[in-house]
Amino acid sequence: MNTRIARLRESLEEPLLVTNGKNVVYLVGFQSSNVALLVDQERVQLFTDFRYIQAAQAVEGVEVVQTKRAVIGALAEQLSGRIGFEAATLSYAQVETLRGGGLDLVPRTGLVEGLRAVKDANELETIRRACAITDRVYERLAEVPFVGRTERDVSWDLTRLYHEEGGEDLAFESIVGAGPTGSRPHARAGDRVIGTGEFVVVDSGCTVGGYLSDYTRTFATGPVDGEMREAYDVVLEAQRAGLEAIRAGAAAIEVDGAARAVVEGSPFAGTFGHGLGHGLGLDVHEEPRLSPETSDVLVPGNVVTVEPGVYVDGRFGVRIEDNVVVTADGLENFTGLRKDLIEVG
Amino acid sequence: MNTRIARLRESLEEPLLVTNGKNVVYLVGFQSSNVALLVDQERVQLFTDFRYIQAAQAVEGVEVVQTKRAVIGALAEQLSGRIGFEAATLSYAQVETLRGGGLDLVPRTGLVEGLRAVKDANELETIRRACAITDRVYERLAEVPFVGRTERDVSWDLTRLYHEEGGEDLAFESIVGAGPTGSRPHARAGDRVIGTGEFVVVDSGCTVGGYLSDYTRTFATGPVDGEMREAYDVVLEAQRAGLEAIRAGAAAIEVDGAARAVVEGSPFAGTFGHGLGHGLGLDVHEEPRLSPETSDVLVPGNVVTVEPGVYVDGRFGVRIEDNVVVTADGLENFTGLRKDLIEVG
Repeated sequence: MNTRIARLRESLEEPLLVTNGKNVVYLVGFQSSNVALLVDQERVQLFTDFRYIQAAQAVEGVEVVQTKRAVIGALAEQLSGRIGFEAATLSYAQVETLRGGGLDLVPRTGLVEGLRAVKDANELETIRRACAITDRVYERLAEVPFVGRTERDVSWDLTRLYHEEGGEDLAFESIVGAGPTGSRPHARAGDRVIGTGEFVVVDSGCTVGGYLSDYTRTFATGPVDGEMREAYDVVLEAQRAGLEAIRAGAAAIEVDGAARAVVEGSPFAGTFGHGLGHGLGLDVHEEPRLSPETSDVLVPGNVVTVEPGVYVDGRFGVRIEDNVVVTADGLENFTGLRKDLIEVG
Repeated sequence: MNTRIARLRESLEEPLLVTNGKNVVYLVGFQSSNVALLVDQERVQLFTDFRYIQAAQAVEGVEVVQTKRAVIGALAEQLSGRIGFEAATLSYAQVETLRGGGLDLVPRTGLVEGLRAVKDANELETIRRACAITDRVYERLAEVPFVGRTERDVSWDLTRLYHEEGGEDLAFESIVGAGPTGSRPHARAGDRVIGTGEFVVVDSGCTVGGYLSDYTRTFATGPVDGEMREAYDVVLEAQRAGLEAIRAGAAAIEVDGAARAVVEGSPFAGTFGHGLGHGLGLDVHEEPRLSPETSDVLVPGNVVTVEPGVYVDGRFGVRIEDNVVVTADGLENFTGLRKDLIEVG
């Protein structure tokens, strides 16, 4: 008995065509870049092409249907009647293809994503393992001096360390932003050589069993000036305020606001230009969101990042990011790393 | 003067909203996971959020507009009039959001992808570099015996070797399929320990300047049996037939057919279940397609993979894949690797 499918069925008004690949992984444990799942109250059909068919046949509790390479085109020919589809995933052109097959289509959003936002014990344990690996990687990363090396070289150290510590893959392309690069929150690691007295923003994570970690620490290459020191303290205090505001029942916009108020009440007002955090699981950005734009309310089992930042254009950036799970009366912080300012040399 | 924008403008009947991230990279050289470009006959506007705004401001020839995190929602509020959109990229829900803003939307497909399918001299040189790196990686990979190691361990060797040879990233998650794993064309590298007398299918590539290589070679771990030997020869002959059929003006379905006929006329008829190849560039799968389902016709500057395969359920797979550019009278093969059967021990 697949409890995730059972829970999904409770919210279905018509059969649902699941085309978001991570939603398919979540529901039946099958990973493919070319797959669709049709879930109704009686059965689950899995459609994929030749390249994935053997793996699909090993999935329990589904009827496997082999299609040509264009899965959506094949579904337009094979399906009929009233069917819900994932409106945030299917492209406009794909919907037109299905409509061309005479289907009565109903746009749906968030049905599986809503389930995924609340992690079960197995998922939490998997994320805990990814975080434990990430703890060790960041500790080891800081053991080798950064000065004189390129951002790209430090990024390769992350790749190697995640492998050595048992991460299966990178969660995303690692960000290593030194000096002015760090003032661009999503800068890629480049060929800039890291100097002394700089901040280096390191944002990375790994996957374990499909689940992700997503950490940021900001290291100092030797002593930093007073403004940088103050920026670090502001971000640390903002993160503390954000973490303290997290509990089941809290409005995500207020959690964001608690951290944001610290930055806005500092000399760095106006420099924290992104949301405080995001859900984390099979995707690096999922529900719920901690931001000034959200209406999400936290519930036990939500796993979120908490990552305030300060960015001083062209000079430096600071970001500190932990991964936590929401509990009834607060949170459990999966991130075991210290967060005082570390000098890496 | 941006010639790519100029060529796109020639095909526009109304302003085009470009939301495919790789299309944005192609047109203006800007990479972000949250970006939209509005191209009309007079100007190019680039919309992105705070995290990418500094990088955006360095892009020449565009007007940068900073939006909130939900770029499509912001566009619904800011844009008006008749606008084309990329129907294969925008989700149904995003189109509904834009329509809610009162826009008169025209679905368009393939406008930028059609330009991308024909590579210019700089793009070809970049892909040549990615392929030269990949040549060296495959040569070095074969210098260390596979037997007794896991597929995952060989996959890590690929990651390390691409880094050492100057690849910027993996083109995609490497496939290392030993023995029965190899009979699943898109199997992930797993914990299976590689034995003697097996085929090991190695499908991987790297990125250089955003452009990809995508190779497959099938190695033997010691002498293989007669059926495996024959399968290898059939795939090699099928690839030769496919390569020979490639020239400007050739129908892609006939190129696929030339290779497919070799497999269908062999004892392995029915086991080549995927297309012969696909376009390669900023994406690992782009136009044109070499398959039994395509109406594409080859033109000079198309870069494609040529990768026939034979898959014997639960026993072994063979695939051999080169990367080539179509020329007026044939092709240039970027892949310098030998393709006789190599024993790796």
